[in-house]
Formats: sequence, structure tokens, C-alpha cells
Amino acid sequence: MAAAGAPGSILAVGGAEDKEYKREILARFVKEAGGRRARIAILPTASAIPAERATHYTKVFAGLGAGESVHLPIATREDADKDQFARTLLECSGVFITGGDQSRLVTTLSGTATFQAIHALLVKGGTLAGTSAGASAFSSTMITGGSAGLHVRRDGVRLGAGLGLITRLIIDQHFSQRERLGRLLSAVAQQPQKLGVGIDEDTAIVYYGNGTIEIVGSGQVFIVDAADAVSVGFRDGDDGRHSLSGVVLHMLTAGDRFDVVGRCRLDAVPPPRPPRPRSRHK
Amino acid sequence: MAAAGAPGSILAVGGAEDKEYKREILARFVKEAGGRRARIAILPTASAIPAERATHYTKVFAGLGAGESVHLPIATREDADKDQFARTLLECSGVFITGGDQSRLVTTLSGTATFQAIHALLVKGGTLAGTSAGASAFSSTMITGGSAGLHVRRDGVRLGAGLGLITRLIIDQHFSQRERLGRLLSAVAQQPQKLGVGIDEDTAIVYYGNGTIEIVGSGQVFIVDAADAVSVGFRDGDDGRHSLSGVVLHMLTAGDRFDVVGRCRLDAVPPPRPPRPRSRHK
Repeated sequence: MAAAGAPGSILAVGGAEDKEYKREILARFVKEAGGRRARIAILPTASAIPAERATHYTKVFAGLGAGESVHLPIATREDADKDQFARTLLECSGVFITGGDQSRLVTTLSGTATFQAIHALLVKGGTLAGTSAGASAFSSTMITGGSAGLHVRRDGVRLGAGLGLITRLIIDQHFSQRERLGRLLSAVAQQPQKLGVGIDEDTAIVYYGNGTIEIVGSGQVFIVDAADAVSVGFRDGDDGRHSLSGVVLHMLTAGDRFDVVGRCRLDAVPPPRPPRPRSRHK
Repeated sequence: MAAAGAPGSILAVGGAEDKEYKREILARFVKEAGGRRARIAILPTASAIPAERATHYTKVFAGLGAGESVHLPIATREDADKDQFARTLLECSGVFITGGDQSRLVTTLSGTATFQAIHALLVKGGTLAGTSAGASAFSSTMITGGSAGLHVRRDGVRLGAGLGLITRLIIDQHFSQRERLGRLLSAVAQQPQKLGVGIDEDTAIVYYGNGTIEIVGSGQVFIVDAADAVSVGFRDGDDGRHSLSGVVLHMLTAGDRFDVVGRCRLDAVPPPRPPRPRSRHK
């Protein structure tokens, strides 16, 4: 199961997105979800304080002009299998998944009616967003923990199964802020067919079903491509040494676009033009 | 002026090399300099406590079986132009430059009789080692400061002129420990014809005049190659955005070898074989 080919868009946010000032990322989500016509479901399942989170995001989305937001209080797998939530989701144009604990999120949602409804929403062209743990959970191979810093080694990262909405990427968040390049490189050394994507705080990728990524927000996105790398120490039977040679690294910022299939940068989105003066004669 | 083509070897050490236990790096230096036949000059010019540093290294080299060590107390450019020091250097097989302040080191030595003698020693096949600031100073483009972390931007690094004994590399040290990947990438984004080499503590490169590097010690060496990268924001007139796409990254450990000219990893040095039992019949 993959978002590839689905006409919808997925925003994976690196956490700590601006909710008060420029709010670029949340504004982009609201826009992708339909703006004034958007109907947004908020899933705070990963959070330790779900009701508070839902209330806060409801206010922010309203301030950004979203049509409507509804809180889906899904805490258990039983909740996640309730028809009422799946029906609500199918009437939505966007879903927002908060941060918290990505393992709890995956355990609660995987394979449930709620998960199927989220997937159906993407297939019919809806927009899915997740921040922090919510972003990590989109991958089929999910990072659940690991070491901080630049150290690259087999036990430098812990991997588990994610929701599998994005199969081509391994997503990590709070990236520069928590010094996570070593663990992302350790992940792609073990699964070189996947691209590693490390997203800074207040930064997001917008991932379209055609395989194009666009960067939004104030920080950097790191894409690491180990498809042609030579690796030592990442397989059973390897000795204690670790080396990883020939990884291609892309550091991208707002407006940059990337082709996930071709594994290369595309031309950046042109900066917005100043608004044209409106003609007085219509 | 360059070490390229000179038959000698240069050890660039990432700082904090083990001086008490395995001492792999310092033992390699002593071996390269001739072992029991080695005559080593110690230059603590970069250090704030030069006499202490010289005494300490003298003891360590003696413990590793080096033939002889001499302290060259060069503190000023006047010292560095004294004939006696240049003559002593020309009788040595190895030179060891301590850590401290790389800008002081370069200001004191550049173009002096001492510098000429060090260069002559390399040309005749001697061995030069520098740790921390001593390693950074070998480059012609030298990193003098910058930001910690993964942030890549034009003002993320400060560059100055180094001694120019190695022209093809920009060397950084204490690399993982002080989170210096961002500043090294910011450096090669501006000078993509140079390879960036980031050396961890207790880790070294041995750089031979034929352009081959070998890794020694307990940590990692990062080599970043931006020759084919697309960069935005690193030239005059670029707008405020920074992106750098298509950098090739190599993370190497002890025994790995790298071809600086071909910009690729070579086969690793085979691990040492167990010593053969000595024949009782000579």
C-alpha cells in the first residue's frame, strides 16, 4: 500500500511548526485541504494530552481560514475500528495527525477502519499531514529510536514497521535540532532502496502521488541516497568496522523540489510574483 | 606548493588522540618516521602551554620506541626564521605539530625558514603530523571557525589561508564530537574543487604524496565531495536561500583507503594477520 499514484498530497512536518506568526506550513496544509471549503479531521492519537492538542489545532486552523475542523478522539484500536470515525473521515478533505509517540500511533491505527478511511481519503485526492511522530509514522520502515550525532553504525538506529502510507522514504524529524544525520544514514545503509528524508523543525515536505516533493518552512530538509553506496558492517556476518561510501546528499530549503523516482533535485518553484494591480475595468 | 608528488607522508589527526593506551595514531606516526631510527621535531607553536606539550609528547614518543625527539621552541616569526631550527629540522625524519590555535600557527610559520625546512623534509620522504589545529593548518584553504550543527549556509563557516602543504583538501577536526558537518559542507559549497575531510577525535588520515589516504584510529572520517553538486546561496548576488544538492559523502573507518584524485574509496587495507610462529632454526 502506498501513496504513489494516489492523487492526494501528504505533508510530513519536522515538528515544532510555527503556529502563531507566519504559520507557513499549517497555512499550506489548509490550502492543500481546500481552504475555506476544507473539512479537517484532527487525530491526536500519538499525543499524551490529546484533547488539549486537538483544541489548539482547531483554533489555529480556524485562524487560517479552514472551513471546519473536527476532533477524532481515537485512543485505542477499538476506537480506531468504530464506523462513526471512519464515516467522518470519508467526509473530510484533510487529516492532521499530531506529534507524540510514533509507536503508539502505529499500534493503534494499523489496519483499522480509521486507517482504511485515511487511505481512501488520499486516493480520492485528500490531504494528509503529520507532525513529528505523525510524520515518522507515514513510512513503511519507521525510525523508532537511535543515537544522536554523526556516528554511522548498524546499532545506531532502531527500525520498526510504520503505517506504510509512504513506501519509498524513511522519514526522520526534529532533524538538525536533535542531530539525527547519523541515525538516518545508519537506516539507509541497511535499506538502500529507500531514500532517507530528515526534516528540520518548522519545516515540511509536501509529497505528491507523482513522486515529487516540495519543501516548505524555515529550515532544511536532508535527503540521503545510498542506492549506489558501498557499505561495510551493516549486514549479518560483517565485522565490527562500519563504513559507508558514496552516499548522495541533498540539503534543500523552502521552494526546492525533488523527484523521488529519479532521485534528483528539480528546478525550484519560482518565488511568488508581486500581486498585479487589479484593473479597474472588469 | 603542495604535498602532491612529494614522497613523504602527512598525518592529519582529529585531536584528542590516545596517548596512554593503544596509541595507534602516534605509533603509526613513529613508524612512518622511521621507528627506532626516527628523529622527531616537536613544534608546539599553536599551543598556549608549549613547553608542557613538548615534554609530554617527548615522553610518549620515547615510550613508542622513537629514536630521538627534540623540542623546537618556536613562538614568533623571528624564531621561525632562525637558521638553527631550520638546520635541526633538515636532520629530522618527522615533525609533530601540536594543537592550539591554527591562526597563530599559520601567522608564525608561513613563508619562514622553518616552513621551508618542513617542506623540504616532506620532499625528501619525511613524515609530518599535526593534531587538531595542527591538522587544519595543513590545508591551503583553512577553516578558522563556524557554526556547530548541520546547518548549511554561506556564513556558516569562516575560511582563511593555511600553510598550503595540502592543496586538494579542506581539513576539519574534532569532527563528530563538535558537530562540524554543516561548516564543512558550507566550505566545499564555496570551493567545490576541494574535498572536505572531517576527522573525528582519536582518528587520523595518513595522506601520501600519490594522493592516497588511509584511515587510522578509533573514530570516523567524513569526506564530502561537492564537485558535481548544485548549490544555491553561496555566491555573491544569490538570494537568502541556501541549498546544496548532489554532494557525495564517504564515511570511513580504520583501514579504509581513499583516492583523492579519483575521489573514490579504494579497497580497504586487509586486517593484520596473526604473527607467524618463529622458526627455531634460523
